[in-house]
Amino acid sequence: MTMMIPDILDKEDVTVMIIAARKKLGLKWAEIAEKIGMSPVFTHSACMGMNAFPPEKAKALCEVLGLPGEAAEVLAESPNKVFDQTVPTDPCIYRFYEVVGVYGPTLKALIHEEFGDGIMSAIDFDMSVTRVPHPKGDRVKVEMSGKYLQYNAW
Amino acid sequence: MTMMIPDILDKEDVTVMIIAARKKLGLKWAEIAEKIGMSPVFTHSACMGMNAFPPEKAKALCEVLGLPGEAAEVLAESPNKVFDQTVPTDPCIYRFYEVVGVYGPTLKALIHEEFGDGIMSAIDFDMSVTRVPHPKGDRVKVEMSGKYLQYNAW
Amino acid sequence: MTMMIPDILDKEDVTVMIIAARKKLGLKWAEIAEKIGMSPVFTHSACMGMNAFPPEKAKALCEVLGLPGEAAEVLAESPNKVFDQTVPTDPCIYRFYEVVGVYGPTLKALIHEEFGDGIMSAIDFDMSVTRVPHPKGDRVKVEMSGKYLQYNAW
Amino acid sequence: MTMMIPDILDKEDVTVMIIAARKKLGLKWAEIAEKIGMSPVFTHSACMGMNAFPPEKAKALCEVLGLPGEAAEVLAESPNKVFDQTVPTDPCIYRFYEVVGVYGPTLKALIHEEFGDGIMSAIDFDMSVTRVPHPKGDRVKVEMSGKYLQYNAW
Amino acid sequence: MTMMIPDILDKEDVTVMIIAARKKLGLKWAEIAEKIGMSPVFTHSACMGMNAFPPEKAKALCEVLGLPGEAAEVLAESPNKVFDQTVPTDPCIYRFYEVVGVYGPTLKALIHEEFGDGIMSAIDFDMSVTRVPHPKGDRVKVEMSGKYLQYNAW
Amino acid sequence: MTMMIPDILDKEDVTVMIIAARKKLGLKWAEIAEKIGMSPVFTHSACMGMNAFPPEKAKALCEVLGLPGEAAEVLAESPNKVFDQTVPTDPCIYRFYEVVGVYGPTLKALIHEEFGDGIMSAIDFDMSVTRVPHPKGDRVKVEMSGKYLQYNAW
Amino acid sequence: MTMMIPDILDKEDVTVMIIAARKKLGLKWAEIAEKIGMSPVFTHSACMGMNAFPPEKAKALCEVLGLPGEAAEVLAESPNKVFDQTVPTDPCIYRFYEVVGVYGPTLKALIHEEFGDGIMSAIDFDMSVTRVPHPKGDRVKVEMSGKYLQYNAW
Amino acid sequence: MTMMIPDILDKEDVTVMIIAARKKLGLKWAEIAEKIGMSPVFTHSACMGMNAFPPEKAKALCEVLGLPGEAAEVLAESPNKVFDQTVPTDPCIYRFYEVVGVYGPTLKALIHEEFGDGIMSAIDFDMSVTRVPHPKGDRVKVEMSGKYLQYNAW
Amino acid sequence: MTMMIPDILDKEDVTVMIIAARKKLGLKWAEIAEKIGMSPVFTHSACMGMNAFPPEKAKALCEVLGLPGEAAEVLAESPNKVFDQTVPTDPCIYRFYEVVGVYGPTLKALIHEEFGDGIMSAIDFDMSVTRVPHPKGDRVKVEMSGKYLQYNAW
Amino acid sequence: MTMMIPDILDKEDVTVMIIAARKKLGLKWAEIAEKIGMSPVFTHSACMGMNAFPPEKAKALCEVLGLPGEAAEVLAESPNKVFDQTVPTDPCIYRFYEVVGVYGPTLKALIHEEFGDGIMSAIDFDMSVTRVPHPKGDRVKVEMSGKYLQYNAW
Repeated sequence: MTMMIPDILDKEDVTVMIIAARKKLGLKWAEIAEKIGMSPVFTHSACMGMNAFPPEKAKALCEVLGLPGEAAEVLAESPNKVFDQTVPTDPCIYRFYEVVGVYGPTLKALIHEEFGDGIMSAIDFDMSVTRVPHPKGDRVKVEMSGKYLQYNAW
Repeated sequence: MTMMIPDILDKEDVTVMIIAARKKLGLKWAEIAEKIGMSPVFTHSACMGMNAFPPEKAKALCEVLGLPGEAAEVLAESPNKVFDQTVPTDPCIYRFYEVVGVYGPTLKALIHEEFGDGIMSAIDFDMSVTRVPHPKGDRVKVEMSGKYLQYNAW
Repeated sequence: MTMMIPDILDKEDVTVMIIAARKKLGLKWAEIAEKIGMSPVFTHSACMGMNAFPPEKAKALCEVLGLPGEAAEVLAESPNKVFDQTVPTDPCIYRFYEVVGVYGPTLKALIHEEFGDGIMSAIDFDMSVTRVPHPKGDRVKVEMSGKYLQYNAW
Repeated sequence: MTMMIPDILDKEDVTVMIIAARKKLGLKWAEIAEKIGMSPVFTHSACMGMNAFPPEKAKALCEVLGLPGEAAEVLAESPNKVFDQTVPTDPCIYRFYEVVGVYGPTLKALIHEEFGDGIMSAIDFDMSVTRVPHPKGDRVKVEMSGKYLQYNAW
Repeated sequence: MTMMIPDILDKEDVTVMIIAARKKLGLKWAEIAEKIGMSPVFTHSACMGMNAFPPEKAKALCEVLGLPGEAAEVLAESPNKVFDQTVPTDPCIYRFYEVVGVYGPTLKALIHEEFGDGIMSAIDFDMSVTRVPHPKGDRVKVEMSGKYLQYNAW
Repeated sequence: MTMMIPDILDKEDVTVMIIAARKKLGLKWAEIAEKIGMSPVFTHSACMGMNAFPPEKAKALCEVLGLPGEAAEVLAESPNKVFDQTVPTDPCIYRFYEVVGVYGPTLKALIHEEFGDGIMSAIDFDMSVTRVPHPKGDRVKVEMSGKYLQYNAW
Repeated sequence: MTMMIPDILDKEDVTVMIIAARKKLGLKWAEIAEKIGMSPVFTHSACMGMNAFPPEKAKALCEVLGLPGEAAEVLAESPNKVFDQTVPTDPCIYRFYEVVGVYGPTLKALIHEEFGDGIMSAIDFDMSVTRVPHPKGDRVKVEMSGKYLQYNAW
Repeated sequence: MTMMIPDILDKEDVTVMIIAARKKLGLKWAEIAEKIGMSPVFTHSACMGMNAFPPEKAKALCEVLGLPGEAAEVLAESPNKVFDQTVPTDPCIYRFYEVVGVYGPTLKALIHEEFGDGIMSAIDFDMSVTRVPHPKGDRVKVEMSGKYLQYNAW
Repeated sequence: MTMMIPDILDKEDVTVMIIAARKKLGLKWAEIAEKIGMSPVFTHSACMGMNAFPPEKAKALCEVLGLPGEAAEVLAESPNKVFDQTVPTDPCIYRFYEVVGVYGPTLKALIHEEFGDGIMSAIDFDMSVTRVPHPKGDRVKVEMSGKYLQYNAW
Repeated sequence: MTMMIPDILDKEDVTVMIIAARKKLGLKWAEIAEKIGMSPVFTHSACMGMNAFPPEKAKALCEVLGLPGEAAEVLAESPNKVFDQTVPTDPCIYRFYEVVGVYGPTLKALIHEEFGDGIMSAIDFDMSVTRVPHPKGDRVKVEMSGKYLQYNAW
C-alpha cells in the first residue's frame, strides 16, 4: 500500500535543492540576498526552512537559483521551527547560547529599567551580522532589534 | 566544630548588598554605570556576580553605593559563571534563547561566509541594549560585538 | 561577615504574607480581585510572584490584606518568571501541558490559516477561568486571548 | 524474509495523503471541517493522527478529499498520542507551553476555588481558535472547555 | 524584614506531625484508616500530602492522632501533587513504573478494545493493596479502578 | 558487502505480521487470547514483543493467525524490553504513570506494613483489565498481582 | 507554628551518628560487621540508610557504637532507597555503571541462555567485595548473587 | 554521487551475521566460547561489538560460524562502546543498574577501606555468570574482578 | 518529486570514503598526517568531519588516498561540529570527560592565578597525543595548547 | 532530638577554611603547592575536596595555612568526587568540555593506533598547567599524562 502514499515536496527537500544550486552557481548568501532584495540573515534562515519567504520573494529566489515552481510554493509556507539540540554543540553557535546564559538576566534587567515590564519580541524582529575592522583583529557585530512588548495587566 | 569554619564574603552576598543599596539610593543601573565609567551591561553583569570588575572600578562602585572595602575585593575576583536553567523560562530571557535556536545556523553560515572558518568570541566581547523609537512601537536594540577567532589548523 | 548582608524583602516573602492574610481574612481570590478591580487570573498570578501589579493596584492589594508598604513596592517589581518543572506533575496542571502537546500543532496550523505566518502573543495576553453549568456535569472554561504577532520578513 | 512482512497503512501515511489532497484541492482546514460537520480543531487534529474520527466522519473526509476506503478505517482507529518535544521549540507552540508554565498554578488555584478539589478533563474536552478584531491589532482567541472531574475520596 | 513574614503551617509540616504521632501511638496505617472510616490507600496518601481529606475526615484524623485544629484545615486543602523523581529509584516503587513502561501499550489496547477510544480516569479513581496467600509465597495484589472517560469528538 | 549480511526475522517484524493478520481476520485481542488459552494482557504484550510466548503457545498463535513457522520461533525468544519514553505522552498510558508518581510512596508504605521490608515482583507477575458496570459510568478495573519478595539481609 | 512540629530522628541523622562514632572508635566497616555478625556490604549499606537492619542487629550495632535506643528503631525501618545521580560521577562508582552499560546485554543473554526467560533478583540478593592478591597488582573481586526469577506467562 | 561512496562492513553488520549463523548452527554462546577458547562473557560481548577479539580468536570464531575473512578483521578492531539508554529499561539489565545505584557508595567505601584511595579497573577486568543450585531456587552468580588502581598524588 | 532533489556529497560521505581508502592502503593516521604535512590530531579530526582542511591540504589528502576532486572541496568546508552524547559512554573518551569534571575548577583556578580573568581558547588551539615510555607501563601524554583570552571589561 | 546528632567536620568545611586562610595569608596556589612539595594541580584539587592528600602532605598544608589538626585528617580521607553540572556552564571549564566533545573520537583513534585497544587512565594520572609565551599572545598549555591501560580479553 506504500504505493498509495503520494510524494510531497517539503522544506527539507527545497533546502537541499538550494544548497546544490548555490554551490553550482558559486553564489554567496549575501549575493543571493541582494538579488532578491532581502537581508542575508532572513534569506539564509528562510532557505534553511526556518522562515517563510513572502511569495514574490520565494519566486525571485527560484528564478535566481533555477529552481522549479513547486519549490517557490514550499518556500512561502509557514515553517515548523524545530531545533533539536537543547544546548548547541557547534562552538560558533554555542558562544551565542553562552552569551544568553551569562547575560540573560542583564538583558532582562536593562529592558525592564529602560522600557518597563515587558520583553523584546522575537517575532517582530530583525537581525544583521557585519564585519567591523579592528586593529587588534576584526570583530563580528551582531545587531538584533525587536519590538518592545509590554505585559498586559488585566 | 561548625565554630571552626570561618565566614567568607562571596559574590552572592555582595550582590545582595548592591541590590539593597541601589534600592535605598534610588539609582538606575545606567546611572551607576555612568558614575563608575563603565557600560550598563557590564556593570549589571558584574554586580550580579557574572563578571569581574577591574579593581579600581570595584572600588568606585563601593564608594558610589556605600559598600565596605571587603566588597570591592570580592567584586574584582574571577567569577564562577554558573547558570542553572539549561532552557531559561523567563519570557524575556527565553526569547533570546529562541533567537539562538532559530538563527544559530544562520549566524554560523554568515560568519563563515564573511570571515572564514571561525567564531565570534564570547570573551573578547561587548554588548549594549538601547531603545530605538519607532512609530509602530519602540524597539529594543541589542548589539553584540566579539573578536573574530579563526580556527587553528596545525 | 554575614552581619554585613542586609535583609531584602522579595516576592517569595510577600507571597507568604498574602497567603497568611487571605486565610485569616477568609477571602477568595475572586473577591480579592474584585476589591482591587482586576481579574482573578492576573491577581492570583501576581500574588504568586509571576506578574507585576501596576503600582496603584499593588497598594490597593496591601490595603485589602493589611500588608505593609514595603510589600506594595515588591509587588510592583518585574518578576523573574521561573518554573521548575519542565513537565508539571500535578494532574490539574499536567492536563493543560497535555493539551499543548496534543493540540499544539493544530493551534499552530489554524492560526497560520486564519492569520498568516505568526503567533499568539503570551505577553499582550489575558485569560479567564469560568464555570459553565452542564447537565452531564459542569465544565471548566478557559479562555485565552493574545494579540496576533506577524513574523517580520526583512 | 523481509518479503514475509506485510505493508500496513498507518495514520502517518494517511496524514501524508491528506496533506497532498488538501494542497491539490486548495481547501482550508476550516472548509474541510465544515464539509464533514466537525470543528476545525478536531478535524485538523484527527487528520494529523492525534484523534480518532467517528467512522462516518472518517468516510465523509475520505469522500471530500478523494481518499481510498482503507484510509477511512485508519482514521477511525484509536491513535497513539506521541509528542516528541518535551519543551516545544516552534515559537507558536512554545507560547502556549509558556502560558501553562507561568499560569498553571493560577489555573489550578482558581479551579479549586470555584469547583473544589479536582481538575479540568483533557478527554471530555473541546477547543476552538477564533479571530477577534481589535483596533490595536486582531487577537487570537483560544477557548478550551473540559468537564470538571472531582477527585474521589474513598 | 524576615520578621514581617508569618509562619504558615503547610502539608509538609502536618505530615511530620502525623508520622511522629503515629509512631508514638503505635498505630498501623490500616488501623488509622479504619478509625476514620476511609481506605488505607487514600488515608496514607492524604497524610503524605498527596490528597485532600474531606473536612470531617480531617477532623477525625486529628482526633485519632491528637493533632491541633490547624492541622485539620491543612489536611482538607487541595494538595499540590509534586513528585520529584521522573524515574523512581526505590525498587518497591520502580517495579510499578516498570509495569507501566512494559504493559502501558497493552493497557491502552485492551481499554480501547473493551470500551472504545478513551482512558481510565486517575481522578475518579480508587485503589487497594491486599495480601493474597499463595503456597509458593504470598502475593501483593493491587487493584485500581477508574471511571472510563471517552474522548470527545466535536 | 551489504550482500553478505543475512536478513533476520525479529520481533518487530512479527508484530507487523500479527497486526496485519488480526485486522484481516477481524479478531479481537481477547478472542485471540482465548483461542490460545492465555490471558489478553499477556497475549497482547507478547504479540507486541514485550514478552516471550511459551513455545507451544507461540505455535498456537501462528496457527490461529496463519503465520509461518519462523514467526513462532521468534515469538518464543526472550524479548529486549525497551520503552523509549521516560514519561509516556499518550493520555491513556500517562494516567498510569501519574498513579505511580502520586501513589508510589503509598504502595510502598502499605506493602511494608502488611508484608515487611520487600517489594511486589514485576517478574512473577500477572495483570488483568476488566469492565465494571457502574450507574454513573462504567469503570476500568486493573488488577495486578506479583509475588512478595523480601529483602535479603546477609 | 514551627513550634508545633515535632523533631523526628531519621535515617540520615543516624548515619551521621554512625560516622562520628566509627571515627571516634577507630573501627573499620569490616570490624563493625564482624561484631554484629553480618557482612560488610550489608552493614555499610544499612548504616548509610539503604537497607533495614533486622531489629536485633540494629540493637547490636547501637551497642557496638554507643548509640541511643532510638537509633536502633530507625535502623530497622524500611528505607526509601533514593539515589540522586542518574549517572554517578565518582570514578569508583562510575566504573560499575560503565560495566552495566557495556556488559548489560551480555549478562542478559547469558542469563537467558543458562536459566530461561527471567532475571537475577536484586532483592533476594547478596554481594561481597574481596581483595585478590595478584603478581601484577592485587585485584578487586565483586561477587553478586541473586535468586533467579522466571517471568510468569499467564 | 552516492555511487562514489564505498560500502564498509562494520561491527553492526558482523553482529547480524553472527546471530544468523548461531541460530542456523544451533549453538549456545557458551559452546561458541568454548570452541574458540574464551569466556562466554567476553565472547558474547565481542560478538555484540562491545569488545575487540584478539586477531586469532576472531579468525577462530569466523571458522566456527562459517563467516567470511572480512568479518574477522572487523571483529578485531577496537570498538566504539556506545550504549544509548542512560537508564536501561529491560528488567534484567535494570536490576544491575539498581544494584550500582543502591550499593555504589558501599562498594566505594569497602574498596577504600581494604585497598586505599583508588578504584576497581573496568579495563583490566573480567567477569563471569554462573548458575548456583539452591534449594529455594537456583541463583545467578556474577563475579567481577578488576585490577585495583591507586590514585596518583603528584 | 524525489527526483527533483539533487544528490549532495557531504562530510559524512567523505569520511566513509576515507575510512575505506585508508583500510585498503593500510595507512596509519600518523602516516597520512605526515604525507600531507599536518599533525595526526588535526588530520584525523578533519577526516572525521570535525575540522576544515586548508584547501591545499584537502587536495593533498585526496591524492594520498585516491579520492575524487569533489571530496577535496567538501573537506575544506566549515564543518558543523555536532556531538550527540552529552556524556560520552566509550571508556576511552569518558575518562577525558571525567578529567574535565573532576579537574575543571582546578584548571580554571590555575589559569586565573597565572594569567588573569580569562580562558584557554578552544579555537586558536592545538593538541597532540604521544607515547611516553615508562618502566611501570607506558603512558599516554596529551598536550593541549590554546591562546589565553582575557575577558573584556567595557 | 537534633541535639543527639554530632557535628562532623567534612571536606566542604575544610575547603572553606583553606580559602579563608589563603586569602588572609595572600598565598597563591602555586606557592602553597611549592611549600608542601606537590604540584599546583593536585594541591588545588585536593584543597577543593576532589582528591585525598597523603597524610604527611595534609599535615604540611595545615601547618602552612594554620589549620587545626582535625582538618588534616579530613584532607587525607578518600573524597566523593561529585560534580553537579553534566555540561559545565563556566566558559573556562566549558572549553575543555568542548575539546572532549570535538576531539574525543580523535583521542580514541590515536590511542588505539599507537598503543592498541585500551585507554588512558584517569586514576594513575597527572596534569599540569603552564604559561607559554608567544608573540601573538601567550598560550595556556595543559599537559595530561595517564598510564596506558590495555583491555583485558579473557
